Amino acid sequence: MIRLFIPHDLAAGAELALDPGQSRYLAAVMRQEVGDEILLFNGRDGEWRARISAVTKRAVAVSAIALERPQATGPDLDLVIALVKRARVETIVEKAAELGARRVRLAVTERTNADRARVDRLTAIATEAAEQTGRLDVPLIAEPVKLERLIAEWEPGRALMFCDEAGDALPVIGALRDRPSGPWAILIGPEGGFSPVERQRLRGLSYAVPVSLGPRILRADTAAISALTLWQSVLGDWTS
Amino acid sequence: MIRLFIPHDLAAGAELALDPGQSRYLAAVMRQEVGDEILLFNGRDGEWRARISAVTKRAVAVSAIALERPQATGPDLDLVIALVKRARVETIVEKAAELGARRVRLAVTERTNADRARVDRLTAIATEAAEQTGRLDVPLIAEPVKLERLIAEWEPGRALMFCDEAGDALPVIGALRDRPSGPWAILIGPEGGFSPVERQRLRGLSYAVPVSLGPRILRADTAAISALTLWQSVLGDWTS
Repeated sequence: MIRLFIPHDLAAGAELALDPGQSRYLAAVMRQEVGDEILLFNGRDGEWRARISAVTKRAVAVSAIALERPQATGPDLDLVIALVKRARVETIVEKAAELGARRVRLAVTERTNADRARVDRLTAIATEAAEQTGRLDVPLIAEPVKLERLIAEWEPGRALMFCDEAGDALPVIGALRDRPSGPWAILIGPEGGFSPVERQRLRGLSYAVPVSLGPRILRADTAAISALTLWQSVLGDWTS
Repeated sequence: MIRLFIPHDLAAGAELALDPGQSRYLAAVMRQEVGDEILLFNGRDGEWRARISAVTKRAVAVSAIALERPQATGPDLDLVIALVKRARVETIVEKAAELGARRVRLAVTERTNADRARVDRLTAIATEAAEQTGRLDVPLIAEPVKLERLIAEWEPGRALMFCDEAGDALPVIGALRDRPSGPWAILIGPEGGFSPVERQRLRGLSYAVPVSLGPRILRADTAAISALTLWQSVLGDWTS
């Protein structure tokens, strides 16, 4: 069934006018008609079954019928990635949504050559992936900040899984086992790696857990997916 | 340093003429000159440092100097994927090379709507990924076969990690722990999932270990990367 993320409040009997983009998608692309049912979520009120009550070319109205799943969020997990090529950042955002990260933060490091990102476009990608993967919220995408500032403003109590390709770090499963389950962040460097200064800084942080992602060189998107998978499998919602 | 996969035998002092594509890449794209060094591997003789001995626009010759790493292969792991959209199959092949699969096999299932693949193009993608990731071999890409035939001709003794999104399967780490480390295959279904008949068939195989990849719906490329990561982390070369 089609799933859409909407900004409106959801409650039994709520009548909602969808925005032009979603209306066009339902009417023109998916050929939905009055009486067809879809699923709606807004990140607050759970997932609702809704029935289409009116269709024109540009406007679709729906009526919320029944709560299908109560609101739930995944573990408190941030993914922090160095700004890499745009296509790769977009892939990572899509995958972070599928793999249950709550936020994606973009870091400017010594070896990144970009300092800007289209946060609106990344949010649209995260929203579409959230709709398809079945989660009940959309990962928040934060504006890029310098790595140094990110560290300076680090939230007390949030542990950091630091994917350290250069070093002698332990494999993820062993490094995470027996640690508390949250809040956490995962940090993935740029494709040229962190600079020696950055790496030393990161390894010196009391809340950082350096981990290894195997013996081969991974692209940033592969590293992000592997790291999210392993974290979810040891401390997250893939454990049961 | 630039790494290239070549068909030639490698030994100290061997003089090799690279093919036109690699010659053009070295001379025109990477601006390499006589005396520059690169790394070569052929899947048999290990990784060799080599020096460029002659450069024209269309032909580059190199001379093998010293063995850098003796030949080694990763674990005996096949990745079997249902034929999905071409772009997604290409991503999966690239990631399978990075994540150390030895072979990629393509399966035609009830819910795949393709039965052909450009194996030559997929092999080129696997080769480039192998060059970049640092492995000493290139994953073999096999021609597509029907799932039923793949099962009928299954190699005795090869275990199968069957990623079963529909079911009550165990998480991967628990399901794989304490199992023998090889040979194995990982099976990833099409985006519509396996049919009920296929699923029952797969669950009935004595060598199949059904596993779950978490509570959200994953695209085929995400599922493949997650499954390879977890297998390598429990039974493969990410364990030490």
